[in-house]
Amino acid sequence: MEDQGEVASYIPELAKVDPANFGVHISTIDHRHFGSGNCYDKFSIQSIAKVLALVMAYRIVGDEIWNRVGVEPSGTAFNSLVQLETDRGIPRNPFLNAGAIVVSDILLSKLKNPREDFIAFVRSITNNTSLDYSRRIAQSEKEVGYRNVALCNFIKSFGQINNEPVDVLDFYYDLCSLEMSCQELSGLFLFLANNGCDVKSKNPVLSESQSKRINALMQTCGFYDESGDFAFKVGLPGKSGVGGGIIAVHPDQYAIAVWSPRLNKKGNSYRGMKFLEEFTTRSELSIF
Amino acid sequence: MEDQGEVASYIPELAKVDPANFGVHISTIDHRHFGSGNCYDKFSIQSIAKVLALVMAYRIVGDEIWNRVGVEPSGTAFNSLVQLETDRGIPRNPFLNAGAIVVSDILLSKLKNPREDFIAFVRSITNNTSLDYSRRIAQSEKEVGYRNVALCNFIKSFGQINNEPVDVLDFYYDLCSLEMSCQELSGLFLFLANNGCDVKSKNPVLSESQSKRINALMQTCGFYDESGDFAFKVGLPGKSGVGGGIIAVHPDQYAIAVWSPRLNKKGNSYRGMKFLEEFTTRSELSIF
Amino acid sequence: MEDQGEVASYIPELAKVDPANFGVHISTIDHRHFGSGNCYDKFSIQSIAKVLALVMAYRIVGDEIWNRVGVEPSGTAFNSLVQLETDRGIPRNPFLNAGAIVVSDILLSKLKNPREDFIAFVRSITNNTSLDYSRRIAQSEKEVGYRNVALCNFIKSFGQINNEPVDVLDFYYDLCSLEMSCQELSGLFLFLANNGCDVKSKNPVLSESQSKRINALMQTCGFYDESGDFAFKVGLPGKSGVGGGIIAVHPDQYAIAVWSPRLNKKGNSYRGMKFLEEFTTRSELSIF
Amino acid sequence: MEDQGEVASYIPELAKVDPANFGVHISTIDHRHFGSGNCYDKFSIQSIAKVLALVMAYRIVGDEIWNRVGVEPSGTAFNSLVQLETDRGIPRNPFLNAGAIVVSDILLSKLKNPREDFIAFVRSITNNTSLDYSRRIAQSEKEVGYRNVALCNFIKSFGQINNEPVDVLDFYYDLCSLEMSCQELSGLFLFLANNGCDVKSKNPVLSESQSKRINALMQTCGFYDESGDFAFKVGLPGKSGVGGGIIAVHPDQYAIAVWSPRLNKKGNSYRGMKFLEEFTTRSELSIF
Repeated sequence: MEDQGEVASYIPELAKVDPANFGVHISTIDHRHFGSGNCYDKFSIQSIAKVLALVMAYRIVGDEIWNRVGVEPSGTAFNSLVQLETDRGIPRNPFLNAGAIVVSDILLSKLKNPREDFIAFVRSITNNTSLDYSRRIAQSEKEVGYRNVALCNFIKSFGQINNEPVDVLDFYYDLCSLEMSCQELSGLFLFLANNGCDVKSKNPVLSESQSKRINALMQTCGFYDESGDFAFKVGLPGKSGVGGGIIAVHPDQYAIAVWSPRLNKKGNSYRGMKFLEEFTTRSELSIF
Repeated sequence: MEDQGEVASYIPELAKVDPANFGVHISTIDHRHFGSGNCYDKFSIQSIAKVLALVMAYRIVGDEIWNRVGVEPSGTAFNSLVQLETDRGIPRNPFLNAGAIVVSDILLSKLKNPREDFIAFVRSITNNTSLDYSRRIAQSEKEVGYRNVALCNFIKSFGQINNEPVDVLDFYYDLCSLEMSCQELSGLFLFLANNGCDVKSKNPVLSESQSKRINALMQTCGFYDESGDFAFKVGLPGKSGVGGGIIAVHPDQYAIAVWSPRLNKKGNSYRGMKFLEEFTTRSELSIF
Repeated sequence: MEDQGEVASYIPELAKVDPANFGVHISTIDHRHFGSGNCYDKFSIQSIAKVLALVMAYRIVGDEIWNRVGVEPSGTAFNSLVQLETDRGIPRNPFLNAGAIVVSDILLSKLKNPREDFIAFVRSITNNTSLDYSRRIAQSEKEVGYRNVALCNFIKSFGQINNEPVDVLDFYYDLCSLEMSCQELSGLFLFLANNGCDVKSKNPVLSESQSKRINALMQTCGFYDESGDFAFKVGLPGKSGVGGGIIAVHPDQYAIAVWSPRLNKKGNSYRGMKFLEEFTTRSELSIF
Repeated sequence: MEDQGEVASYIPELAKVDPANFGVHISTIDHRHFGSGNCYDKFSIQSIAKVLALVMAYRIVGDEIWNRVGVEPSGTAFNSLVQLETDRGIPRNPFLNAGAIVVSDILLSKLKNPREDFIAFVRSITNNTSLDYSRRIAQSEKEVGYRNVALCNFIKSFGQINNEPVDVLDFYYDLCSLEMSCQELSGLFLFLANNGCDVKSKNPVLSESQSKRINALMQTCGFYDESGDFAFKVGLPGKSGVGGGIIAVHPDQYAIAVWSPRLNKKGNSYRGMKFLEEFTTRSELSIF
C-alpha cells in the first residue's frame, strides 16, 4: 500500500521511529483476534490516550464534565484559540489539546495519586499490567511544549483550570506518553464496541449510554480537522495519535488498531487512514 | 413533552405556522409504518432539502462534487465567512447555506430545466407525485434573503459560482420551499437506510458507497453548530430544517421524521431533538 | 525612482492605464503650486472619493454619522467580515469598502438627487466645474463587483442599510469613478490643510473640529492594512486609491497628490508611497 | 470633570490605588512647566513603559527591530491571537502585550545586565536617579499573569522568542512596574517632542527620523482598540497604561502627562481621555 507523509518531528523522541513500521490488529466482541505486521511492537499512542483520560473522568464526575468541555467538532485548528476566547476557556471538545488539558486538570483534582491511579485504571480494563508510561517520551514532549503551555495558561486566565498549569501539563504529557502495541490497543478499546463492558470480565467500564456517547464523540471529533473525512471514507468512530496510531470501533462488533508512523498534512497516519478506508469499503462494515 | 423556543420568524410565511403542531413518522426497510400527531400535515422542509439537492448532484457529477464543497463540520456559524475567505470560496460542507448554494449552482449548470427536473427527481424516489414547491414560501424567503445574497456573491467573487447569483438563489429558494408531511419525509429518506435503494422498486437512487457517505455527512454536519450534540444525544445521521422538521436515518433499519416548529437557540426543533433523544435512548437504537 | 508592482486588474477599465504614468502636485495654503510629470492628466481617484463622500455626509448629519460607522483601524482585510458580524453591521471605519457603502447609503437617504447633488458639492469646493464621474469606469466596476454586493447585502442583513443594496452600490460605483488630475486633487483637498475652509473663497467646507477629525481618520485608517506603515514612513494623513492615486495633507501647510498606477501588495501605489516617504524625510515635513 | 469606570483590578496591587487621584503636568521644549492636582505623586506607569523599552531596543538594533514586530494597528484585542498565528509569531505592533514581550526578549539578549541597564537608560534621559521599578507591583502582576505566559509561550512556539519565557516575562513585569509622577513622566517623554533630543543636555536619545517614527506608532497604535478614537478626539501621539496614566506628545511643542486611575471599557483612563480631548479642543493644539 502506498505510503506518504512525514513522521512527527516536533517531538525529538518520536522522530526516531522507523517510518516503515506497519501493524494492524482486530479484536472482536466474540473473542476473535487477527493481527498482521508490527502488531506486537509497542508505540507511543499519544492523543489516543485522550479517550482513556476522558473515559476515566466521565466515570468519576459523570455528565458534569460537559460543563468544562463541549461536544462539538472544532472546525479548523486555526479557530481553536479564537473559540477558547469566545467561549471563555471552554474547549469545543475533549479531543483537542485544549480539551484534553481540561480533562487532565479534572483528573488531577479528583485523583489521590493521579499518575498511579490513571495507569492502574488503564491496566485494569483488560487486566494488562505491562501497560506503562514512557518517561523518555513525556520528557521529550515537555521540552518543546510551548504551544501547550500557551493553551493551558490561556484557559487558566479564564479561570477554567484549577491546578497549577505546570502540574496539569506534567500529568498531560505522562498520559500522552502511554505505549502499547496494536494488539494491546484493540483489546483495550473493545469495551467501547461492547456497550461499555469488558468482554472477558463483563465488568462495566462505562454505562451503555456513556459508551455510546464516547463513540459519538470519536465519530464527530476524533480526527481534528479531518473528522468529517474519516466519517465519510471510513465510517467508524475512531481516534488518531501523532505517533501514527489509529483506533477505530465498530459498535457491537470489533475494535481495530492500526499503526504506521508517517502522517498526512492533517496530522493523521497516512497509511492508517488508507488501510481503514479500504477495509470498511471492501468489508462493507461502515456503521452507515 | 416539554416545549420551548421560538418559531422561525425571519421568513414571514414560516412565522404563521401554529407552534403547537407535533408530528412523528417512522418508515422501516421491512415496510412497516408508524405515525402519530400531525404526521400527515405538510410543512416546509427548508434545509432538509439540501440533502436531496446533494443526492441529485452527487448522482450527476459523482466525486468531482467534492472539488467544489468540503466534507468537514464547520465549527461555529461565526466562522463560516472566515472559512470561505481562507478556503477561497470552497464551503466546508454541503449542508451550510454556502455549501447548498454551491450545490444549487452545480444543478443549475447540469440540468436542462432545473426546477422541473429537480422536482421530478424527488417525486420519482418514492413515486409520490403530490410533492411540490411552495411559491409562497420561496417568495417570502427571497424578500428577506440578504444574508444569502451576501454569501452567494462572496463565493462568486472567488470564481466558485458559475451562474448569475440571482438565478442560483432563485433556484435555491425553490428547493428550500419543498413541502411534505412527516409520513412523506420518512418514506422519501428511507433509501438512505437501505444502502441507497428505494425499498419498493429496488431502484438505486445512489450507490451503496455514496449512500453511506451521505449518512456520514449528515452525522457530522447535519445540525449546524449542534451536530456534535445530536450525535452525542441521539446517535443517528440526520438533518434539520428551520421549519421545525428533522429527518434521521438508522442504516439498515428505518428513517424517522419529526416536526415541531419551535426552535432552540441553535435553530433546530426543540421538541424534535428531545423526542429523538428519548426515542434512541429508550429503544437503545443509536448507531453507536 | 524604482517602480514595482502591478496595475489594478480586477476592474477591466483600470487595467488599460499606462503603468509608466507618474505625476505629483503640491498646493499650499499660501497659494503656491508645484507640479511635475503627468500632473495634469486625469485618472480614476477610486477610494480617495470615500473621503469626499464622508465629508459631505458629515456636513449633513454631523456626529450622528458615528452611530453608523466607527473610527478605528481595521487590522487586516481578513478581519473585516468577522468584525461586521461581531459588530452587527457597523463597519470599523468609513474608508473600508463596507464603511464607504454605509456612507453612500446615508447620502442616498438624505440627498434629493444623489448623483447630481454630490458632484455639485465636489465641484463647489474649488469652483471646478470640469470634475465628473466616468460612466465607463463605474460600469466596469459594477460588472465585477461581487464582493461589494456581498458586503452591502451582509450589512443590510443586520438592518444597517436603509436603501436597496442595488441602488446603494450604483451610487457607490459612481462616487468611486470620479476622475481628476493631481493638480485638481491637491487643490480639492487643500481645505483639509486649512482647518476646513477653502483657501480662496474662505468658505467653510467643514468646521475646524470636523476637519481635524477627518485628518485624524486619514492618518489612522487611510491606507487599509498599511496605514501604520504610512504614518511610520511618511507621517502625514492621507488616502490612497486603487487607481494609483494618493492624497496627503500637511495641516496648516499643504496638500500633495501623487499618481503612479502600479500597486504594491497592500493595494497602494508603489511609487507614490516611495515618493512621499522621500519627500517628507528630506523636507523634514512629517507632522510627527 | 465627570469620572466613570473602574480601577484596574486584575493586578491586586493596582486595585489598592485611590480612584479619586487626578494629576496633570505639561513640559514644553522651551523649558516651561505646568502642573496641577496629584502631579507629584508617583504611580505605576504600566504599558507606558513599552515605549521606553521600544526606544532602548530601537537605539541598539536599529531598523532590524521591525523584522521581529510590525507597525500596524491591531484591530481588536480579540484578533491578536489569530494574527499571531497567521503571522507566525510576529506581533502587529510593539505596544500590544505580545509586541512588548518580543521587545523585552530583544533587550534581554542584547543587554549585559538587563534590569540594571534598562533603569540606567531611563534615568539617564532626564538625569533623574529617583526613577525605579516597584518589586511589589512586578510580583503582584506576575502572580496573575496567565494570559502573558500564554502569549509568550505561543510566540516561542513559532521560534520568535530567543530566551526562556519565564525570564522574558520576569523582565517584562519589571519594565511595567516603573513608577513616576506626571511631572517626571512629561519630562521624560519631552525628547519625543524635540526630535529625539533631551531639551536640557541636547543629547540625542534617538535620531530625528527614529523619534518621528515612535510618535507615528503612538498615534496609530498607542491606545489598543481605541487608538482611532484618541487620534480622532485628541489628535496627539500618545500611550496609555492600565495604572490610569496617559502620556501625549505634541511634536515641536510639549509633552503632557495625565493620571486618573478609573478606566473606561477599552482599558484607558476615563478622565485622562476626557481631559486631553477638552485640552486639545479648547487650545486648538491637535497636530491635525
